[in-house]
Amino acid sequence: MISEKMKPLVANNSVIRVMFEEGKRLASIYGAENVYDFSLGNPNVPAPKEVNEAIVETLMEEESTFVHGYMSNAGYEDVRATIADSLNQRFGTAFHQNNILMTVGAASGLNVILKTILNPGDQVIAFAPYFVEYGGYVRNYDGELVVVSPNTVDFQPNLDEFVEKINEKTKAVIINTPNNPTGVVYSDATLTRLGEILREKEKEFGTEIVLISDEPYRELAYDGVEVPYVTKYYANTVVCYSYSKSLSLPGERIGYLVIPDEMKDSTEVFTAATIANRVNGCVNAPSLMQRVIKRCIEKGASVNLEAYDRNRNRLYEGLRECGFTCIKPEGAFYLFVKSPIPDEKEFCATAQKYNLLLVPGSSFACPGYVRIAYCVSYEQIERSMPAFEKLAQEYKLK
Amino acid sequence: MISEKMKPLVANNSVIRVMFEEGKRLASIYGAENVYDFSLGNPNVPAPKEVNEAIVETLMEEESTFVHGYMSNAGYEDVRATIADSLNQRFGTAFHQNNILMTVGAASGLNVILKTILNPGDQVIAFAPYFVEYGGYVRNYDGELVVVSPNTVDFQPNLDEFVEKINEKTKAVIINTPNNPTGVVYSDATLTRLGEILREKEKEFGTEIVLISDEPYRELAYDGVEVPYVTKYYANTVVCYSYSKSLSLPGERIGYLVIPDEMKDSTEVFTAATIANRVNGCVNAPSLMQRVIKRCIEKGASVNLEAYDRNRNRLYEGLRECGFTCIKPEGAFYLFVKSPIPDEKEFCATAQKYNLLLVPGSSFACPGYVRIAYCVSYEQIERSMPAFEKLAQEYKLK
Repeated sequence: MISEKMKPLVANNSVIRVMFEEGKRLASIYGAENVYDFSLGNPNVPAPKEVNEAIVETLMEEESTFVHGYMSNAGYEDVRATIADSLNQRFGTAFHQNNILMTVGAASGLNVILKTILNPGDQVIAFAPYFVEYGGYVRNYDGELVVVSPNTVDFQPNLDEFVEKINEKTKAVIINTPNNPTGVVYSDATLTRLGEILREKEKEFGTEIVLISDEPYRELAYDGVEVPYVTKYYANTVVCYSYSKSLSLPGERIGYLVIPDEMKDSTEVFTAATIANRVNGCVNAPSLMQRVIKRCIEKGASVNLEAYDRNRNRLYEGLRECGFTCIKPEGAFYLFVKSPIPDEKEFCATAQKYNLLLVPGSSFACPGYVRIAYCVSYEQIERSMPAFEKLAQEYKLK
Repeated sequence: MISEKMKPLVANNSVIRVMFEEGKRLASIYGAENVYDFSLGNPNVPAPKEVNEAIVETLMEEESTFVHGYMSNAGYEDVRATIADSLNQRFGTAFHQNNILMTVGAASGLNVILKTILNPGDQVIAFAPYFVEYGGYVRNYDGELVVVSPNTVDFQPNLDEFVEKINEKTKAVIINTPNNPTGVVYSDATLTRLGEILREKEKEFGTEIVLISDEPYRELAYDGVEVPYVTKYYANTVVCYSYSKSLSLPGERIGYLVIPDEMKDSTEVFTAATIANRVNGCVNAPSLMQRVIKRCIEKGASVNLEAYDRNRNRLYEGLRECGFTCIKPEGAFYLFVKSPIPDEKEFCATAQKYNLLLVPGSSFACPGYVRIAYCVSYEQIERSMPAFEKLAQEYKLK
């Protein structure tokens, strides 16, 4: 019954599912409070109170057939205008509503832009470590994901290898900053050089290369670090944004694409992407949540960043005291920790003995590391510390 | 910039867009109240009051991180169980939560099941007249849409031609009952024979053929007509449901797939469809709306069917009095009217002179007819009657 293209996804899925099931099994034996599940990127910080306020206000103040009805496939014009204005105020850009396409989250936004531009055999470059699903998204449109190996010094992208891997088949490059799984924010210097390389290569091959910036973690940056706005560095940039993390709404599937005027064939790309959004079955981004986003922007709503920052500091300091090695993340809600042994899957298996659930870096094309998601309660982090200490002792880290 | 696969969609899109723009243009000249737009399937009947009540109750009674957070990619277990129970009570089926996969509306459900089962070159049969987007959905997965020509006597599917068109490449058949654009409900006799044909052909070719029943209009049936539940007629059936029309929530993108136990490789198909739902970028159906659907089922919410029925009767009688010919629809909110001249596009152009916006049947692979969507205000229908009379006079219909 299953198509050939889906078969490897089904086979691979079971590997990930094993970890979820293992978590449930451990919880049933030891109690949920004694299992330290750091595997999932599901925010524990609730949506800011403005979200539910905006929902109720929308229902009270706007017509049912408007709030729950069809609108332009690209989204409500006033919502898109509000987002454009907000970006312009924050980043000094000059977007208007016809640069903003509302999507069913960033994952759908990525699919929409890839469907819009990819021909079979086109290559899409990603920098390891990267979000595992990119490969699936690219293969949806018969493209080929080309992976640049990780720079494990500071986890900025490996631009020397990048230069080597661009060729005439390169149609797109995906970056993700702040990064999942490292928490690293791509620097101004990185983005400047990235833009230079892309312009040089477009000229060399006579092609257009689209830089896709996947930004669900844009608002999650600590210590006052600036997350540069990528469209300023390179004209053929498309931004994929999501409110999953910035407003703790991952289940609601609400986000947008930015397709700037500076992009080649911008109007045509926007039209095609709007159609791709419809024909892939989404039709439009969920309507009530679009209305809510407008009100949340006007209210200046933001997620409780202090909670994540507190988790980040506690976990980072705690793991260092245990003897683990990792760079301090400037964004997102992940720590990417060096495995004390080369085979990090074995290390994850050992961690499970102490009821610690961590994700192997090989799932992000970066073996030798593990991802720890700290979008959990502070109490879970506190409770898990003795387990991390025992794990460190087993590897004689101190 | 645009992929080869998207180019024809972009070219074709502009044709449909012209009608929307024409409606806006006419409204700006003559006033919105003097333009009779029957082109769109956007419900004018508001969502039942239980929807907004359920939203507010959900926000008050359930945790933010639960309501707006990630759940299983297939949807919340309790929501799926409630839907299964409700179907069982209404149709005497025996579904359970693992037969129900929550989707981003029926359009996304169709994409999910087609992605799950189609290999390149596989054929999918649809019966004219059919919803135009099916072709795009099938081509998303490199399948080929094969169209069975319409039976214009009663608009039940043309099963004699269907028998001839099934071959070893036939992977799926899409039906849509109550039907867009005819409003016809497929009868017990039709579905019985359809099931027989499919079983015979599966045996003849040694293949599995999936019957996909697209049912956004299931609850919109009039005069007490029964809409038979399709899984009872054929084992390899997948139902695509949507709350767009049954609760007037088309913008919210909420629906589900039914993948019954009786289906071949049912568990594997369900798993693969859940992954397809994730990897196509939807990840999961919008979370708050899932919670709301559960409460609406418990509250017994339903849309104001009487309003549509009143429209249906008024428009049907009015058009007949003018001399137009059409079968009286038993479901959905469309009339499919015979064009007085063979070229129904020319007829639509003439209708526009009287500010009547109708959709040509050739958009549904059924030239010679026009679709009139009566999901509009009763007042619009009343106001439009003199325009229909003038149109009829132009063609000397009385």
